[in-house]
Amino acid sequence: MLNEKPATIGVMTSGGDSPGMNPCIRAVVRTASANNVQVLGIMDGYEGLINAEFRPLGVRDVGGILQRGGTILQTQRSLRFHEKRYQREAIRNMNSAGMDGLIVIGGEGSLKGAHALAEQDVRVVAVPASIDNDIWGTNMAIGVDTAMNTIMEAVDKLRDTASSHSRAFLIETMGRGCGYLAVMAGIVCGAEMVLIPEVPVTVEEVAKAVDEAYMRGKKHCIIIVAEGASVKVSDLAKALDDMDVGFTTRVTILGHIQRGGSPTAFERMLASRLGIKAAEALLAGESDVMVGLHGRDIELVSLADVTAKSRQASMLYYEMARMLAR
Amino acid sequence: MLNEKPATIGVMTSGGDSPGMNPCIRAVVRTASANNVQVLGIMDGYEGLINAEFRPLGVRDVGGILQRGGTILQTQRSLRFHEKRYQREAIRNMNSAGMDGLIVIGGEGSLKGAHALAEQDVRVVAVPASIDNDIWGTNMAIGVDTAMNTIMEAVDKLRDTASSHSRAFLIETMGRGCGYLAVMAGIVCGAEMVLIPEVPVTVEEVAKAVDEAYMRGKKHCIIIVAEGASVKVSDLAKALDDMDVGFTTRVTILGHIQRGGSPTAFERMLASRLGIKAAEALLAGESDVMVGLHGRDIELVSLADVTAKSRQASMLYYEMARMLAR
Amino acid sequence: MLNEKPATIGVMTSGGDSPGMNPCIRAVVRTASANNVQVLGIMDGYEGLINAEFRPLGVRDVGGILQRGGTILQTQRSLRFHEKRYQREAIRNMNSAGMDGLIVIGGEGSLKGAHALAEQDVRVVAVPASIDNDIWGTNMAIGVDTAMNTIMEAVDKLRDTASSHSRAFLIETMGRGCGYLAVMAGIVCGAEMVLIPEVPVTVEEVAKAVDEAYMRGKKHCIIIVAEGASVKVSDLAKALDDMDVGFTTRVTILGHIQRGGSPTAFERMLASRLGIKAAEALLAGESDVMVGLHGRDIELVSLADVTAKSRQASMLYYEMARMLAR
Amino acid sequence: MLNEKPATIGVMTSGGDSPGMNPCIRAVVRTASANNVQVLGIMDGYEGLINAEFRPLGVRDVGGILQRGGTILQTQRSLRFHEKRYQREAIRNMNSAGMDGLIVIGGEGSLKGAHALAEQDVRVVAVPASIDNDIWGTNMAIGVDTAMNTIMEAVDKLRDTASSHSRAFLIETMGRGCGYLAVMAGIVCGAEMVLIPEVPVTVEEVAKAVDEAYMRGKKHCIIIVAEGASVKVSDLAKALDDMDVGFTTRVTILGHIQRGGSPTAFERMLASRLGIKAAEALLAGESDVMVGLHGRDIELVSLADVTAKSRQASMLYYEMARMLAR
Repeated sequence: MLNEKPATIGVMTSGGDSPGMNPCIRAVVRTASANNVQVLGIMDGYEGLINAEFRPLGVRDVGGILQRGGTILQTQRSLRFHEKRYQREAIRNMNSAGMDGLIVIGGEGSLKGAHALAEQDVRVVAVPASIDNDIWGTNMAIGVDTAMNTIMEAVDKLRDTASSHSRAFLIETMGRGCGYLAVMAGIVCGAEMVLIPEVPVTVEEVAKAVDEAYMRGKKHCIIIVAEGASVKVSDLAKALDDMDVGFTTRVTILGHIQRGGSPTAFERMLASRLGIKAAEALLAGESDVMVGLHGRDIELVSLADVTAKSRQASMLYYEMARMLAR
Repeated sequence: MLNEKPATIGVMTSGGDSPGMNPCIRAVVRTASANNVQVLGIMDGYEGLINAEFRPLGVRDVGGILQRGGTILQTQRSLRFHEKRYQREAIRNMNSAGMDGLIVIGGEGSLKGAHALAEQDVRVVAVPASIDNDIWGTNMAIGVDTAMNTIMEAVDKLRDTASSHSRAFLIETMGRGCGYLAVMAGIVCGAEMVLIPEVPVTVEEVAKAVDEAYMRGKKHCIIIVAEGASVKVSDLAKALDDMDVGFTTRVTILGHIQRGGSPTAFERMLASRLGIKAAEALLAGESDVMVGLHGRDIELVSLADVTAKSRQASMLYYEMARMLAR
Repeated sequence: MLNEKPATIGVMTSGGDSPGMNPCIRAVVRTASANNVQVLGIMDGYEGLINAEFRPLGVRDVGGILQRGGTILQTQRSLRFHEKRYQREAIRNMNSAGMDGLIVIGGEGSLKGAHALAEQDVRVVAVPASIDNDIWGTNMAIGVDTAMNTIMEAVDKLRDTASSHSRAFLIETMGRGCGYLAVMAGIVCGAEMVLIPEVPVTVEEVAKAVDEAYMRGKKHCIIIVAEGASVKVSDLAKALDDMDVGFTTRVTILGHIQRGGSPTAFERMLASRLGIKAAEALLAGESDVMVGLHGRDIELVSLADVTAKSRQASMLYYEMARMLAR
Repeated sequence: MLNEKPATIGVMTSGGDSPGMNPCIRAVVRTASANNVQVLGIMDGYEGLINAEFRPLGVRDVGGILQRGGTILQTQRSLRFHEKRYQREAIRNMNSAGMDGLIVIGGEGSLKGAHALAEQDVRVVAVPASIDNDIWGTNMAIGVDTAMNTIMEAVDKLRDTASSHSRAFLIETMGRGCGYLAVMAGIVCGAEMVLIPEVPVTVEEVAKAVDEAYMRGKKHCIIIVAEGASVKVSDLAKALDDMDVGFTTRVTILGHIQRGGSPTAFERMLASRLGIKAAEALLAGESDVMVGLHGRDIELVSLADVTAKSRQASMLYYEMARMLAR
C-alpha cells in the first residue's frame, strides 16, 4: 500500500543530461515545499543512490537555476545499477535517509531503473528527459525544444554563408535510434534532405539526389543526418567529393552542443509542469508511473508501458519536411 | 457553392506583425504549388486588397524567408476596410485578379475582416497570428513562442545584474486585454509578481507586497506588468520610490522588440503546420473557418465563433506562477 | 615605499555592475596564484571593505564564472565610503586581514575611492568597468562591448517589425553624461538619429527632422536616445504624436538589461587582459594607477589623472553615424 | 598617375565569405554616395569581374543589410583569375563599364589578385576579410570577432553539459595555417588546451596531458583544435578512447557555422570604418594599398607588403591561454 503522504522525497537526474532538468528540479522542490514535504537531492543519478550521496534541497537552493543548462544534481550513467544487489543497496540507502518516494528525471535507461525500483515497492514517479524525444508516452520530453533551437540556430548560420555558390552542407544531429530531432530540424531549418534511422538509404541514393538538386539549379543543399542514419556523414562527404556532384561538401558535427544552452521558454514551461505533476502524483500516492505531455495536458502513464515500447519519428512529419523543401 | 478547386488563391498578413508570419506564407505557397495552384501575395493587408497590390508568389520567392522576422508581404491596419464599400472594392479586385480564395494571417481585427468577407461569399480561411495569444479557438497563435523567448532572454539579463542588492525590476510586456504573455513570462522567468488585466490590483497593494518581499529578505524583486494591467509601470515605479520600500526601482519597457526576432523552432513548426492546413482547407472547399492548434492537432473552427469570443489568461497558470515564485 | 611583493591581495567589484567583471576577477585570481599570492574577495564593494566581508578566492573558486554576467563578489554603491572615518575603518580591516594591496574593478565613483585609498598609502590598482564607457584613460571599459551587442540585438528585432509601414521607434539607452554607447549603437544599428548629452537639441528640432524623414519617403525611423540627452524619450514620443508627423511612435526603454548578459568574446578578452595586468602591476609594486586599453596595448595611467578628467563621445563617430544613415 | 577623382568605382567580395562583408559594402556605397561617386557591385568576386556581372548599388540598395551575414554580392573562388589573360579580360570589362577604381573585400588570395591588378595600373584598394585573422597588416580582419563569438557560444553550451562527469570535449575550429582563432577562443572559452599549427605536438603528448588532467582531478577537459594543427581531431579522439584516459571523448566540428551569423557590434563598427577608409583612400587617388586596423586607427599598408608576409598566432596569447587555464 502506497497511500500515506510522504514526508521526505528524493529527486535525481539520470542518464544523458538535457536542458530543462534544472527548472524541473526547481518545480519538484517548490511543489513539495508548498505541501510541507522535504526534498533530498540525489547526486550523480543512480550512482548517488547506491553511494548515498544526498543533500537537502530547500526553496532557496533552487533559486536562480531556472535559466541554467545542465543539472545541479549532476548526472552519470550507472552500469552496476542493472544488478539487483546494487538496487537493494540503493533501496537500503533510501530507507535509512527516510526517503518515502523518489522522482527520477531521465531517459529510457533511467526509466527502466525507475520501473525496477517500483517493482520492489519503492514509490517512484518518473519524468521523461531526452533531447532525442525517443520516449514513448509523452509528446515531448525535456530537452527537445532547446536542442531543436540549438540545431536551428546553427543551420541558420550555414544559410548565411550558403549564399555563396554550390555548397552541400552535411549536419550531423543526435538521434541513434530515433530520427525525431532530425526530421523536426529538417522542417524548421528548411533542409533539402533528412536522413534518419527509420528510413534506410544508401550513399549512392543520396549522392544521386544531391546531383539531381544541383542539375535542377539549386544553389546549395542542406542535409541533416541523424547520428543513427544508415548513411554516415563522413562516408557521405567522401562519396560526394569522389562523385564530383558539382557541390563542394562541408561537414558540421554538432555533438554535445545539442545538450547545452539555457532552456527555452517552452522548455521551462514543460519542465515546470512535469515537475509539479510528478511531485503531486508522488504525494498523492501514485507509483510506477511517468508524467507525460498529451496534447495540452500532463497525464500519467504506466512505467511498464513506457519501458516496453519505443518511439520513432513520425512519417507524417517526414513527408511534411519533403513537401516543404520543394 | 464553394466546392470547386481554386486555381489561384491570395495570401495576406494583416494587423500587428508577429514572428512566424513568413514561415506561414512559405507553407501556404509550397502547399498550393504542390497542388498546382497559383498564389498571389497581397501587400499591406486589407489596404493592399482595396488597392489591388498583388504579386505572384512562386516556390522560389519564399526561399530563405523561414528565418526572417516580420513579413515579406508587409502589414498595415486598415480602418476603412470596416466600411462595406471598401470591402466591395476588395472583392471586385479579387475577382478581376481571378482569385478564387483567400488566406488571411492576422489577429482579432483581421479575423473579423475575414469573417466579413466570408459572409459576402468570398472563400476565406484564416490563420491566427498575435503575440498576445488573445485569439479564441487556438491553444497558440503565431508569434507567441518567439515573443515569450524574447521577454525571457531580456529578464534573464536582468537576473544577472540583480545579483547586486536590493533592486525591484518592473518589466512591461505586451497584452492590452489579455495577460497570457505576462503570466507565461512570469513562470518561465521566475518572476516574483505578475500584474495582468484579468486581476485588477491597486498600486498600494503591489507596493505592500514588494515591501513584504523586502522584509522577508528577498534580494531582488522581478515584476512583470502587462500593458493593460490596472497598475501602470510608471505609476508603480513612482509609488515604490516614494514609499521607499527598500528596493531601488528600475524600469524596462520592451515595446515592439517583442514583435521581432527570428522565429523559434516551435514557431516555425506551428506556422508551417497552420499554413499547410489553411491551404489544404481552402483547396478542399472550406470557408469562414480558422485553423487552430488543439492539443497536438490542427483543427478547423468557425470564424463566427472565433470573432464572437475572446480569450483570457488562464487562472491556473496565474496560480502556478505564484506557487513557483515562493 | 611600496616595493615588497605582497603575499595577499584583495579584489572587489564596485558601483554599477557590468558584464565582464567575472572574467576579470578570474584573471586576477589566476595571475596571483601563478605568482604564489593569495587573494581575498571583498563582497559588496566598499561596503564589504568597511564591514570586513572577505572570503578567500582560490583557482577553483573562479572556475566556471567566465561566461556569467554580473559579479560573484556582488556590488553596491557606498555613500559612507566618501567619509574619511569609513575609509580608515576599511584600511584597518585590510591590515588586520593581512591584505598588502587591493584591486578595484569599477566605474568613475569607484576609481575616486581607489585614489582616496592610494593617497592614504594603500597599494591599489584599479580596473575600469562601466558600460557607459565614460572613463578617461582607456579606449574601452569592461562592459561596453557586451552592452553594445545587447542594444544592437534589441534594435535588430525592431528592424524586423519596422518592415511594416510608418513607425518611429525611440530607444532609450544608458549614458547619463556620456553619449558614447548611444553613438556607437547608432552606427552599428543603422539608426536614423542619435540624441546624446554632448549635443543638445530641442524636441521641436527632432520632431522636424522626423517629419522631414517621413516626407523624404523613409518607411521607418529609428532614434537612439541616451538617458542624459536634452530631450527625454517620453516628451519626444508625446510631441511626435501631437504633431502627427506621419509615423506612429513606439517606445522601448532598455533599462538594466544593458548591464546583463553573458560577456562577449571581446569582453572576456579585454577583462582577462586588464585583470592580468592589474595583478602584475600590483605585484610589481605599482599603486595609484589604473590599467587601460591603449590601441592594442594595456598600459598604466595615473589615477589622479583618471579621476580629474572625464570622457565624452567622439564627435568623429557622431558624424560617422550621420553619414552612414543617409 | 592615379590622382583624378573617380566618378564610378566597383566593389566586390571575394574568397571565403565572412560576417561583416555586408556592413563594409554598405559603408563603401554610402561614402561614395556622399562624394557623388557611383558604385557598381561586382557579383561573385573575380569571376564576376571576368564575366562583367555588374550592378549599380545605390544608397537604398544597401539598406537593411547591416545585420545580415554572408554577402549580398556573393563570393566565389576564381582559379582562372591567376592567369594573365583573365586578368586582362577583367580590366577590359572595368574599362568598358567606366570603372575608375576597385575595392576588393577578401582574404589572402583575394589580396594577391588585387595586387596583381594594381601592378597593371588598375586603381585598387583592398579590405582584409578572413575569419582566420591570418592577414598581415591589420590587427583584426572582418569576420574574426563574429567567428570568435560563434565558437564561444558553442563551447559555453558544452560547459553546461560538462557539469556531468569525466568528459573530454574536442572542438575543431577553422585555421589551416594560423592558430589565431583557436588561441583566442581558448582564452575566451577557458579551454584546458589549445592545439595550433604553429606549435606541433604528437597525439601521444596530448593524450598524456589529458590523462594528467584527469589524474589531477579535473572533471572535464575542453580542447580546442585548429583545423591545421599537427594532431587531427578524429585521430585524437580515437587515441584517447584507446588509451582509456578516464574521460569519455566527445567531438564537435563547427565547420562553416563559423562563417555565418549576424555580425557583432564590433564587427559592424570595424567593417564600417574599413569600408569608409577604403572608399576615401580610393577617391583620394590611393592604390595598391590595404586598409588595416592599427591600434585604434585605420591606416593604409602597401599591398606588396601584405601579400609578401604572413601572420601567425601570437605566442604571448598562447601562453596567456595556458596561464588562465590553470
